[in-house]
Amino acid sequence: MYWKPFNINCDFDSGVLTPPGNLVVRHLSDMKGFYQDAEAFTTLLGQNPKIYEYYNVIIPEEPGHLQHCTSILMPGRVGDEYFMSKGHFHKKTDTAEIYVTYRGNGILLLQTPEGHCEYLHMYPGSMSYIPPYWAHRTVNTGSNPLVFFGVYRGDAGHDYGIIEENGFAKIVVEINGIPTVVDNPKYKQK
Amino acid sequence: MYWKPFNINCDFDSGVLTPPGNLVVRHLSDMKGFYQDAEAFTTLLGQNPKIYEYYNVIIPEEPGHLQHCTSILMPGRVGDEYFMSKGHFHKKTDTAEIYVTYRGNGILLLQTPEGHCEYLHMYPGSMSYIPPYWAHRTVNTGSNPLVFFGVYRGDAGHDYGIIEENGFAKIVVEINGIPTVVDNPKYKQK
Repeated sequence: MYWKPFNINCDFDSGVLTPPGNLVVRHLSDMKGFYQDAEAFTTLLGQNPKIYEYYNVIIPEEPGHLQHCTSILMPGRVGDEYFMSKGHFHKKTDTAEIYVTYRGNGILLLQTPEGHCEYLHMYPGSMSYIPPYWAHRTVNTGSNPLVFFGVYRGDAGHDYGIIEENGFAKIVVEINGIPTVVDNPKYKQK
Repeated sequence: MYWKPFNINCDFDSGVLTPPGNLVVRHLSDMKGFYQDAEAFTTLLGQNPKIYEYYNVIIPEEPGHLQHCTSILMPGRVGDEYFMSKGHFHKKTDTAEIYVTYRGNGILLLQTPEGHCEYLHMYPGSMSYIPPYWAHRTVNTGSNPLVFFGVYRGDAGHDYGIIEENGFAKIVVEINGIPTVVDNPKYKQK
C-alpha cells in the first residue's frame, strides 16, 4: 500500500550510486549536431569519448514523488566548446529542479521558452535553483569530472526536442584559456 | 513573470547556507514532552542546549516548486535518549522528501498514519527516500553534528501536531553504549 522507505549510497567524489538504479551513458556519438565545430566533432568521434552519465534512482513518475539522480559530466572540449549535457525542458514545464554540486567546476545554462538565457556557476557547495519553466544544460569548464545531485518532481518528465532543434541562445567556449559565455551564432528562436 | 534562477552556497561540513534564508533554531525548551525522561529533561533545561537548527531556502509554497534546506542536529542525550527533531507529517500527506547526509551519524525514524514504524541509518553519503505518507524524525546517534540536506515539494507543508501528541512508536536510546531502536513505552496510537 505505502511505498517503502529506502537508502541509496552516494559517493560524493565519483557520483556513483549504490545500487546504481538506472544508469544512462551519453557518448559523443549521441550528440551529433549539438556542438559548433563540425570538423572537431568528426575528428573526436574516432575516440567517441563518454561525455556524461547519470544514475537515476527508480521512483514512480507521480506528482507526490521525487525523482533524483547524480550526474557525472566529463572534462573536455569539442574545438573550443566545453563538454556539456544535451539540456532539456521538463515535459511538465511548470516544475522546478535543484542541482547540488559535489565536485568540479561548471556552468549551468538556463533558458525560458521565449529564449531568454541566463547562467549560474557550479562549484562544490553550489545549490542551483532551476525554477519552473527554465530549460537547463550543464557545461564542464574544469579539468575534473563535474559531479552533482539533481532532484525534481516525480512526474516532471523530459522534453529534449526543443533544445536539440534550437540549441541554447548562449554557448560556453574557451577564449584565451578562460571559460566564457558567448552568444550562440547558430541560435534561432522559432 | 518567471521566477529567477539563483545559487545558494552550502558548507557541507557545517551545513550553513549563504545567504541563510529562513534560519529556525530549536532549543530543549521548545521540546517539552518529547523525551521519555522528565527528570533528565528538567535538569538539562538549566543549560537549555540547542537541539537542532535548519536553514530554509525561501521558495514559493506551490506544487511546481521545491522547498529545500540543510539541517544541523546536535549530538547529545536527554537521559538515555538521543537528541532528535520534533518530527512531522507533511500537511499534503501524499508528498515525498529526500535526505542526503553530509556529516555525522544518525537514525531516521519513519511512521505511517496507522503507526507502523521503520528506520534507516544516516551517514555521510546516505540518500534516504521518505515516500509519500510517512512521518519522519531524525535522531543524532553520533558524537558530531548530524548535517543533512532535505528537499520536498513546494506545497508539502508540515503537520507537527499528530507527532507532538502521540510520538513515534519507536525511540532511539543508548544501551550499553550502543544506539538502539526500542518500542516507545509511552506510545499510544489514537
